Amino acid sequence: MHFSNNDTIVAVATPVGEGAISIIRVSGTNSIEKVNSIFEGKASLLNVKTHTLHYGKIVSKNGDVIDDVLVSVFINPNSYTGEDSIEISSHSSIIVVKKIIEELVSINIRLAEPGEFTKRAFLNGKMDLTQAEAVADIINSRTEASLRGARNQLDGMLSQKIESLRNALINTTSLIELELDFAEEDLEFVAKDKVKEEIQKIVSEIEKLLSTYSFGRVVRDGVNVAIVGRPNVGKSSLLNFILKESRAIVSETPGTTRDIIREEVVIDGVLFKLYDTAGIRLAEDKVEKEGVDRSREAVKNSDIVILIDEVVNGTPRELFNELIELIDENRIIRVLNKVDLGFGSAHPTMKRTQPTMTQQTVYHAQPPTMKPTKSQQSSKSCSSSDISTPLSNINRSLSEASEWMPLVEMTDNYKIPHLKISVKENIGIDSLLELLKEKALGSGSFTEKSAIINNIRHFNALSKAKSDLDEGISSLNKNLSGEFISVNLRAAEDSLGEIIGKVTTDDILNNIFDNFCIGK
Amino acid sequence: MHFSNNDTIVAVATPVGEGAISIIRVSGTNSIEKVNSIFEGKASLLNVKTHTLHYGKIVSKNGDVIDDVLVSVFINPNSYTGEDSIEISSHSSIIVVKKIIEELVSINIRLAEPGEFTKRAFLNGKMDLTQAEAVADIINSRTEASLRGARNQLDGMLSQKIESLRNALINTTSLIELELDFAEEDLEFVAKDKVKEEIQKIVSEIEKLLSTYSFGRVVRDGVNVAIVGRPNVGKSSLLNFILKESRAIVSETPGTTRDIIREEVVIDGVLFKLYDTAGIRLAEDKVEKEGVDRSREAVKNSDIVILIDEVVNGTPRELFNELIELIDENRIIRVLNKVDLGFGSAHPTMKRTQPTMTQQTVYHAQPPTMKPTKSQQSSKSCSSSDISTPLSNINRSLSEASEWMPLVEMTDNYKIPHLKISVKENIGIDSLLELLKEKALGSGSFTEKSAIINNIRHFNALSKAKSDLDEGISSLNKNLSGEFISVNLRAAEDSLGEIIGKVTTDDILNNIFDNFCIGK
Repeated sequence: MHFSNNDTIVAVATPVGEGAISIIRVSGTNSIEKVNSIFEGKASLLNVKTHTLHYGKIVSKNGDVIDDVLVSVFINPNSYTGEDSIEISSHSSIIVVKKIIEELVSINIRLAEPGEFTKRAFLNGKMDLTQAEAVADIINSRTEASLRGARNQLDGMLSQKIESLRNALINTTSLIELELDFAEEDLEFVAKDKVKEEIQKIVSEIEKLLSTYSFGRVVRDGVNVAIVGRPNVGKSSLLNFILKESRAIVSETPGTTRDIIREEVVIDGVLFKLYDTAGIRLAEDKVEKEGVDRSREAVKNSDIVILIDEVVNGTPRELFNELIELIDENRIIRVLNKVDLGFGSAHPTMKRTQPTMTQQTVYHAQPPTMKPTKSQQSSKSCSSSDISTPLSNINRSLSEASEWMPLVEMTDNYKIPHLKISVKENIGIDSLLELLKEKALGSGSFTEKSAIINNIRHFNALSKAKSDLDEGISSLNKNLSGEFISVNLRAAEDSLGEIIGKVTTDDILNNIFDNFCIGK
Repeated sequence: MHFSNNDTIVAVATPVGEGAISIIRVSGTNSIEKVNSIFEGKASLLNVKTHTLHYGKIVSKNGDVIDDVLVSVFINPNSYTGEDSIEISSHSSIIVVKKIIEELVSINIRLAEPGEFTKRAFLNGKMDLTQAEAVADIINSRTEASLRGARNQLDGMLSQKIESLRNALINTTSLIELELDFAEEDLEFVAKDKVKEEIQKIVSEIEKLLSTYSFGRVVRDGVNVAIVGRPNVGKSSLLNFILKESRAIVSETPGTTRDIIREEVVIDGVLFKLYDTAGIRLAEDKVEKEGVDRSREAVKNSDIVILIDEVVNGTPRELFNELIELIDENRIIRVLNKVDLGFGSAHPTMKRTQPTMTQQTVYHAQPPTMKPTKSQQSSKSCSSSDISTPLSNINRSLSEASEWMPLVEMTDNYKIPHLKISVKENIGIDSLLELLKEKALGSGSFTEKSAIINNIRHFNALSKAKSDLDEGISSLNKNLSGEFISVNLRAAEDSLGEIIGKVTTDDILNNIFDNFCIGK
């Protein structure tokens, strides 16, 4: 599978910016010879061993020294790409890098396409497709968990799983095809049962993998969380508090737009991308249409929405109604902020040093004679589903600081119980974070240390394989000819082969490698 | 001079950002042993040759594989620092790099200070101080000329020059001191003449070097150009035109503030930093004080100011008066824009398709009967100095498109002639660019390929040496004792030694290396 006729390609492999060293990568049949023609060192690069470093100067055709460099030589097949390769380590200056690459291009070395080095590694059998994808994932990883997941995938954990499922499938297909060749009838009874059992085993393994997808995706890409609420309920304060508490802010590129602030934070290894929608209404509003559009977009793209109410003024019914039009209700976490002020306080600026008055206003708003309302009842049934199964941590925090309690009848749409918090007094925030994590990771007992999928391509290919196998089972049940079943199984086999790259098309490869950075 | 007891240091040497490869650099006595303790590869790094590359995995203490890496081994003294060194080439992920560095720190490797690798290279005699400074200059170089200058300095061109001056000085000092030992009188007549001649030779060489400073600085750092003028005279149009024409924009980080736009452009190898002051007045203005302050600051920090007038409304006297309070008059280039409209036109929006009328307005404003004015006379005398010696290109452009011509008497402060341009019709812009280059580089016939200085530290040390030598000559002339002269000469010797680092202090070293980036 070694492609020996590859032309020679070049790209800068290190990020552009302020630094000490830049690496320029060259790979292809004539790479060593070509680089040697602009290199002046003690030894000719043509006579050196693989995996050796050579100090010298890159000299342009007109005799100018461009830079002194260290050149690493890799002789095929012992290189990343499997081809002869060179890495030139130069001073990290935009001009130096530009000039060296210009010089290489002038001797007919071609600029590499995104991911072309890794694509060549795949084509030369140095890695399979899931491993190639893991390379991109490692580079893009933002958390330790995402890194571990990508690492395991690069080490072949997913490949081995897919490979073993595919082999089982091939064996089963052989069984059918053998029966077809020798049996008098179409499929013998014994073979049929065995085949069905085997297929069902494979389907169940595929289902297991499919069920890891949302976890895998969260681990790899993080969780989008929109913080929604009327102005002054404490959205920005909550955001800032979380950022300050977690300390591990990884927001190098906060995507601040006019209306929406994005911050990134890692909580227990999970990357959360928090969007503060800045109190913009979600409903159409001609004056602020652009802002409204952006807020709606943020909500739609969210995995979780934190809807903040506050004790003094509650939340008007419309905002909640607008919200559940945009996303599924069980993706909403409702929190009630400013519980330090008590409930229904008419004095949001009131100091906590006036506890009596605060207490009083609570009782005004929530008199003990009040009957359980519809919303209170429904909140109870709800609390036994999603939110009554929090982590032990949540339970502890809740019993310490707050209980599930519906808000008073300022509005009547509280189907979801509120988590009571006070950003000001640091009440309930830990519980909120645990709840966020719980909602994000789901209840599965997955770990990024086992074979999981985190990639829509893998998800789709596995889904396709499962549906072909389901069809195969259905054909078996209908006593259709073994040839039909064989076609289903071979289709599933191809889908599994696509994941690891045993079966591939230019489209698949382009889709994967176009998303790589240049130089990888 | 080898410092064998250096502790082991680590830093990431590649820029942080999106890329394929990151390099983590480790240097110090125990670097190979320490890295080996977290490295799992085919071979132990303890038994490998210098300048070899080894594939393996970095494994954390708890057994997690952090990344697969290529490790380069450099055994002292054959390394950049002169110490045992390791370069770890990992996937370019912030998390990977962070984790590897954390792992190294956990085995008592210290985070390197800025420039510490190069500082160690200097302390271990791998390079002198001017060469160390050239390393930073290479990394910061933005133009090919600045790169060539830094390259030559790294190759020792300046060092050799300074070294030879210093040696000449040492010889001369010996001559004096020998005379002092053996002569009956203080200094013999013959020796005195010879000494004076030698010192004068050295002084004249130092003067030559000093005269290269402004050229060297321009080559290294570029030229600050403020574009000043009332609103609507065409400042932004001129800026945009220059940017478009030159194509080679290098402005990755345009320093756009509210009032001042900065763009960078390379014209014939010289970096120009162009500041558009956006038509803000220079004089105090309480309402716009901040904007005024910034404009004044931009002008003060400029090497050159382009003051734009336009034919229709001219420029009020105050702006020019304000300007010459801030900077020297000969650093101002006055241009007259919109010459396509003719002079004194009252119709700035007039189309060029009405040439007759345009011509007419010129004659209205500048009737042929008008006598030469004072400003015209003075402009002539001036044009023979600064502006009448442009490059051949300017002369050509000028004769083609425009002539030196004073503006009509709308104001009377035109001591400097105007360069006539029309941004709209591309008239005179080439001449303006040539003039900019001429003003920036001066009339000296320097080239970045000879020994030049571009560094204020070198300039100050050379100035100090010159003044000590001047004092020596003066002492000689006054027949002072040879011992006095010897003191002057030794002081000058130290100043020269400081430049190349033969004489050095912690302060000098800190000043230099603190400005380096981490990892170099």
